[in-house]
Amino acid sequence: MHSSPRLLLLGYGNVAKALLPLLDSRGSWLEQELGIRPLISGIGSRRTGFFTHSAGVALSELAKEVNPLQLFSASGHASEDAAAFIRAGRATGANALIELTTMNPDNGEPALGHIRQALEAGMDVITANKGPIAHAGEALQTLARQRGLSLRYESAVMDGLPLVNLAEFTLPAVGMRGFRGLLNCTSSIVLSQVEQGSSLEEAIRSAQEAGVAEADPWHDLDGWDAALKTTILANALLNARLTPRQVQRSGIRDLSRTEVVAAARKGTPIRQVSSAQLVDGVLSASVSPQRLQPDDPLFAGRDLGMISLETEAMGTITLTEHSTGVLQTAYGVLSDLIAIQRARNASQETH
Amino acid sequence: MHSSPRLLLLGYGNVAKALLPLLDSRGSWLEQELGIRPLISGIGSRRTGFFTHSAGVALSELAKEVNPLQLFSASGHASEDAAAFIRAGRATGANALIELTTMNPDNGEPALGHIRQALEAGMDVITANKGPIAHAGEALQTLARQRGLSLRYESAVMDGLPLVNLAEFTLPAVGMRGFRGLLNCTSSIVLSQVEQGSSLEEAIRSAQEAGVAEADPWHDLDGWDAALKTTILANALLNARLTPRQVQRSGIRDLSRTEVVAAARKGTPIRQVSSAQLVDGVLSASVSPQRLQPDDPLFAGRDLGMISLETEAMGTITLTEHSTGVLQTAYGVLSDLIAIQRARNASQETH
Repeated sequence: MHSSPRLLLLGYGNVAKALLPLLDSRGSWLEQELGIRPLISGIGSRRTGFFTHSAGVALSELAKEVNPLQLFSASGHASEDAAAFIRAGRATGANALIELTTMNPDNGEPALGHIRQALEAGMDVITANKGPIAHAGEALQTLARQRGLSLRYESAVMDGLPLVNLAEFTLPAVGMRGFRGLLNCTSSIVLSQVEQGSSLEEAIRSAQEAGVAEADPWHDLDGWDAALKTTILANALLNARLTPRQVQRSGIRDLSRTEVVAAARKGTPIRQVSSAQLVDGVLSASVSPQRLQPDDPLFAGRDLGMISLETEAMGTITLTEHSTGVLQTAYGVLSDLIAIQRARNASQETH
Repeated sequence: MHSSPRLLLLGYGNVAKALLPLLDSRGSWLEQELGIRPLISGIGSRRTGFFTHSAGVALSELAKEVNPLQLFSASGHASEDAAAFIRAGRATGANALIELTTMNPDNGEPALGHIRQALEAGMDVITANKGPIAHAGEALQTLARQRGLSLRYESAVMDGLPLVNLAEFTLPAVGMRGFRGLLNCTSSIVLSQVEQGSSLEEAIRSAQEAGVAEADPWHDLDGWDAALKTTILANALLNARLTPRQVQRSGIRDLSRTEVVAAARKGTPIRQVSSAQLVDGVLSASVSPQRLQPDDPLFAGRDLGMISLETEAMGTITLTEHSTGVLQTAYGVLSDLIAIQRARNASQETH
C-alpha cells in the first residue's frame, strides 16, 4: 500500500455530492491500481458548517450515510470558517484540498485564498474553480512547485473532458498552435432557444428555470465565463501568460433576435466562440459571436461542449463532450486525484 | 541526463521518412523535458537493405542528409535480413525497436515475429502495425511485462490520435462501456464518391489513384481493416480478449449504388461503423454499414476519422481526427516513445 490521500472537501454543493459516491464506486480500482484507500478528513461549506474528523472517514462508510455531512457534524470538530477548517484539517493530517466553493469571477476569491492557504500549509490542491486559475494560475503553480506540491484543475474547463491532462500526458510535443471552442454551454442554449422563436429574455428565463443559467446570466452571455476558460486553456496549452482582461471579448447581449434567427435559417447559426492562436510566437485570444459554417469543426457541437485543437503534428483534433453535468465535473476531480497519486507513487518509490 | 534511447527503425517507408525529421524537430523538447538525445542505431527495410551503426547516429546529423539511409549504407554494418538486423542492432546497444514494416493482415507476420524477437532480446517496442497487436496483443504484452519492457502501439488505430494513451493516462477509472467509430477512411472516401455519382469500381479506382486505397481494396471495403482496429481498441479500452475473427463483420461490397445514393439524399449517409459494447460484462463487437442519422455523434465525421467513447462517468465523448497522414502516424510513434521514456525516467530515479 502507498500512503493514502486524506482529502479535505471545501464546498458542499452538487459536485461534492456527486464526487463522494463516484470515489466510493472506484474504491477497488484505486486500491488495485494505485494502492490507496482515500479518506475524507473533512467537509465544509459556508451554508452547512465546517467539520473535520481527526481519524478521517472511509468512503465506504460515507456511502452508507444518506447525508454524509451528518456523520461529520455529529462526530467531527467544527471550525468557524474556511481558513480555520483548512488549518484544522491539515492538523489532522489532511494532505489534499478539493476546492469546490462558489467564487467571484472578477477575482477568483475566496477560492483563490483557500488554494493559497492550502498550498502554503503543504497540501496538494484540486480545484474545479475557473477564477483562481484564470486570475492567478501562474503564481499558484509557482507556489506549488516551490513546495513540491501539485495543483490540478481539469474540471475548470469542460468538466472532466481531458484538455489540460490531454496536453500534458498524451499530446506531448505535438506543437500546439491554437484552439477554437464552444466553452460556455449557457450561451449556446440561450441562442438555440432564440433560434426557435423565443425572445432573449424568455430564453434566459427558461435557461434559469432549467438550472442552466445563473441568477445573473450576463457573466455567461457577455463572455466573461468563456474569457476565464480561454485564459486557462491558453496558459495551459499554449504556454501563454494571459490574464482574463487581455481576452478580446464581445458578448451576445447586443445580437438582435432577427439576426440570430436569420443566421440559423441560412444554416450558419451564431455561437459564442472562444479562440486563442499563436502566430509567430504572438498570442491573440478572443471570445465573440461567430456564424458557424457547416464545414466548421464546431458546427456539429453547436448545442454541445466542443473544442478544436490546432496542432502542428496532428493537424486539427476536435473533442466533443455530449453530457455536461455534476458527474462529469466530479470525474475531472477524480482524474486529477489519480494524476497526483501516480506522481506521488512514482516519487515514493524513489525513497 | 537520462540514458538516451537507441532506436532501431525497421521499415523505411513514408512513416519512417516523416518520423526522422519530426524527432529532430523535437530535439530540444526531448532534451529539456526528458533529458534525452535519441540516437538512431539502424535503419532497415527489405527494399533498401538493413544497416546498423555501432555508435548510433544523432538525429541532427541525419537531418542534414538528403537521404538518411545513405549515411547508414556508407558507414554502417549490413545485415542480410530483418532478424539479423535486430540481432546486430541489439549487439550495438539499441534498446528500442520501431516497427513500421508492411504486414499480412491475416496473421500480422512478419511484423509479429520482429516484435517478438525484439522483446525477447530485451528491447522496448513501438509499432504502428495493426496486425501483430490485433492477432497477438495479449501474448506480446505478457512477454513485454515479463521482461520489464514496454510495447506501445498508439498509431495502430487512427494514427497518433490518443486513444490507447488517452484511456491509460487521462481517462482512468472512467468506466468505459463501449465505442462506435469510423475507423477506416478508405471506405468512407469510396462511399462518399459513390454518393456523388461514381460507380463502386470508379470510386475504388479514384481512391487507388489518390493513394488512399491499396492495390487490393477489399481488405478495407470488406471491413477487415476495421475489424483489426476494433479488436485492438476493444482489448485496450474494454479489457476484452477479442480476436479479429470474433468481430461480426459485413462489408460494403454488396451495397448497391442506388441504395448508397438514396440514403445520402435522405440525409442519412451510409458509413462503415465499428462498434464494441460491454453489456452486463458481455462484449459484442461488429463492423457493418450503417445509416448515420443527423443526431448520431458520428454524422459530423462521415468524411473524417471519428470515434465516440461511451463512458459511465463522462457520458459520450467524441474525438475527431481532421488530418490523417504519415505525419500523424509518425506523431503517434513519437508520443509512444515519450510515454516509454517517462516510465524509464521514473524507474531510473528509483535506483
